[in-house]
Amino acid sequence: MYADQNQLKTSIFRLEHFNAAHRLDNPRWDERKNREVFGKCNNPNYHGHNYDLEVRITGPVNPDTGYVMDAKELSGIIQEEVIHRFDHKNLNLDVAAFSELNPTTENLAFIIYGLLRKRIVSTYDLKIKLYETARNYVEYPAG
Amino acid sequence: MYADQNQLKTSIFRLEHFNAAHRLDNPRWDERKNREVFGKCNNPNYHGHNYDLEVRITGPVNPDTGYVMDAKELSGIIQEEVIHRFDHKNLNLDVAAFSELNPTTENLAFIIYGLLRKRIVSTYDLKIKLYETARNYVEYPAG
Amino acid sequence: MYADQNQLKTSIFRLEHFNAAHRLDNPRWDERKNREVFGKCNNPNYHGHNYDLEVRITGPVNPDTGYVMDAKELSGIIQEEVIHRFDHKNLNLDVAAFSELNPTTENLAFIIYGLLRKRIVSTYDLKIKLYETARNYVEYPAG
Amino acid sequence: MYADQNQLKTSIFRLEHFNAAHRLDNPRWDERKNREVFGKCNNPNYHGHNYDLEVRITGPVNPDTGYVMDAKELSGIIQEEVIHRFDHKNLNLDVAAFSELNPTTENLAFIIYGLLRKRIVSTYDLKIKLYETARNYVEYPAG
Amino acid sequence: MYADQNQLKTSIFRLEHFNAAHRLDNPRWDERKNREVFGKCNNPNYHGHNYDLEVRITGPVNPDTGYVMDAKELSGIIQEEVIHRFDHKNLNLDVAAFSELNPTTENLAFIIYGLLRKRIVSTYDLKIKLYETARNYVEYPAG
Amino acid sequence: MYADQNQLKTSIFRLEHFNAAHRLDNPRWDERKNREVFGKCNNPNYHGHNYDLEVRITGPVNPDTGYVMDAKELSGIIQEEVIHRFDHKNLNLDVAAFSELNPTTENLAFIIYGLLRKRIVSTYDLKIKLYETARNYVEYPAG
Repeated sequence: MYADQNQLKTSIFRLEHFNAAHRLDNPRWDERKNREVFGKCNNPNYHGHNYDLEVRITGPVNPDTGYVMDAKELSGIIQEEVIHRFDHKNLNLDVAAFSELNPTTENLAFIIYGLLRKRIVSTYDLKIKLYETARNYVEYPAG
Repeated sequence: MYADQNQLKTSIFRLEHFNAAHRLDNPRWDERKNREVFGKCNNPNYHGHNYDLEVRITGPVNPDTGYVMDAKELSGIIQEEVIHRFDHKNLNLDVAAFSELNPTTENLAFIIYGLLRKRIVSTYDLKIKLYETARNYVEYPAG
Repeated sequence: MYADQNQLKTSIFRLEHFNAAHRLDNPRWDERKNREVFGKCNNPNYHGHNYDLEVRITGPVNPDTGYVMDAKELSGIIQEEVIHRFDHKNLNLDVAAFSELNPTTENLAFIIYGLLRKRIVSTYDLKIKLYETARNYVEYPAG
Repeated sequence: MYADQNQLKTSIFRLEHFNAAHRLDNPRWDERKNREVFGKCNNPNYHGHNYDLEVRITGPVNPDTGYVMDAKELSGIIQEEVIHRFDHKNLNLDVAAFSELNPTTENLAFIIYGLLRKRIVSTYDLKIKLYETARNYVEYPAG
Repeated sequence: MYADQNQLKTSIFRLEHFNAAHRLDNPRWDERKNREVFGKCNNPNYHGHNYDLEVRITGPVNPDTGYVMDAKELSGIIQEEVIHRFDHKNLNLDVAAFSELNPTTENLAFIIYGLLRKRIVSTYDLKIKLYETARNYVEYPAG
Repeated sequence: MYADQNQLKTSIFRLEHFNAAHRLDNPRWDERKNREVFGKCNNPNYHGHNYDLEVRITGPVNPDTGYVMDAKELSGIIQEEVIHRFDHKNLNLDVAAFSELNPTTENLAFIIYGLLRKRIVSTYDLKIKLYETARNYVEYPAG
């Protein structure tokens, strides 16, 4: 409830979920090359995932609240910018950002980062971790 | 390594995973009714999930091996009958069983049960648990 | 989408969460006896838990929907009857059911079962699993 | 805190962990046959696992405590009978029960059940679930 | 067992748990403002959580042991400084540090860091991650 | 599918598993000292673990694929270098690297890092996290 001069910056994390369909494909390549590179992820009829999204905000602790940022407010921003846009959607067909961009986990993280970055005040650092499966996930930006 | 006359039947469990796209829709209903009942799960462009499949086999323990059934053998059967058929597929478009059957978790469990039942000797009981998300899952047959 | 005469009853599960404070105490015992039996769970100032609640509904699959019951409808009932009543509450002080009943996980499961049972049509079986921690949980009714 | 005449039997669960080495081998078979049946689990120098043990006790709720059984008491029994005996041990070399019995998960569950059964009063039902890995586990007795 | 001149600093992690009650409140604000900012976390009768605490220690690997630090020793320090102080307690009423400090996850992490920092030799880096729920957690210090 | 000039470096993660036996021991110390330092981890007959290995690769996103690196390729390298070498093995007896090095989690991470580093092009950063149990794990290199 007070500002301790020794209190360093803190990161807060919020975890949200969405379910989406996608396929991986490079339209400049022929079918054989796409199948060779992307394997079963190239299935023309799509497949899908339960995506887990971890959002990390780093900044000072507000001495009035003891929060870096209210988790409910952060959750609301993620709902508006990410969940409403991607949940129960086909990333290739329903999301404009992927009309020319391959919806890999790496690119999806990049797009999500951009959507959230414009809603989080610039004095806070932002980083996201996106889980496509329990065994494959990415962090953006790295480090 | 021996048959203890007190050793009762044991259940063994094997967990496998697959990722698939689907949509929920009753073709006998109009679009409005389908949207009302199935909500965002009715998205015409599909969405998707990471499905976790738990297979339970119940039977006596073989005194030569100490196994109810070899987990590698069970895993192989699940791979052949379920994973190869559903992984990175669109359940509605790529799987014949769902040409007329709504691919709810309940119906998907029923279909998977049928595929496995014919590969597991009838002296063993079979039951499956299918997780569509970490918060929604089904067991078939119940009980 | 159709009623398969071989399709047996199916269980569906829905997982929800709530956070609550409580203490364990038998008002008919003195302080020493309560401390001896309930240990640190008897702390007069309360402690708390993140409770995970798994609700299982068992019944036939509806041939029109392919659902035993709509998970959104089930989630709504759990929200109304359980989460709104217990989340971010003190079980001993804020919940009438525990004015005379010790809020152990066993008793909390019994009370939750009663609240849900009157909202689920009687042709469906109902069972709940309540996790007080990742290592201590209960099922009601048993079996 | 009181006995409700409608309160049915409840199951309580306690989860404990131990780490052990083992190898699978049938001494009546030659090396080739053992390698064929048990594969890499037959490695003569052993391998190992983090075992997760779930113990389920089913009985009436005690009206004085609101417990089926005190989780601390149950944990203490599991520590004495199972964890102290198996944790950081070689099941084949350090545990007498496996001098002639193959330490499969099935047989380990049977032995653990026997150790716990004699410490739990007979009016309570007992069942255990033993996880060798996150994907291979057993229940004893089944059902 | 030897010091490899290429072996860089390593981080070791230890995970511990405690259960506590708390409420969020700024005594300089009136009831309406506190309810507006902290929502249901402001419940005057408290609520509670299962806290998961991850402690990270970073330093060189000791060539005699192959450890950065003995996990049992680290666990013992966490038990003494954190678990014994916070487990099954009311953070607001039972812990002096929160008599004037709002027990948010951010502030709790700051206090825990201070308690551990004085017990870990200064040549080791220290960082903690504190999970209030599976979806809300913090890291201190950030980065 | 294109190189966005604002797209920073991304980390990708791949999780793999192996099960192994080991014991901790410093051959320059006598039995009493080893037992004192390593406790039950010093059991001469070994014990074992389910190891979870998280491999993190950091680099730019390839504009042709949208991948930092193909997860299947990364998984294949981990299989060849780590899983085939350590899975269902005794680290002390079956792995040359530990003939003189104590197989602590810290040292095992160092060895695994070296095996993978020579297979990952040097323009990518590499970091690993190795879980010996759910409560004890390490990161190499730190930071």
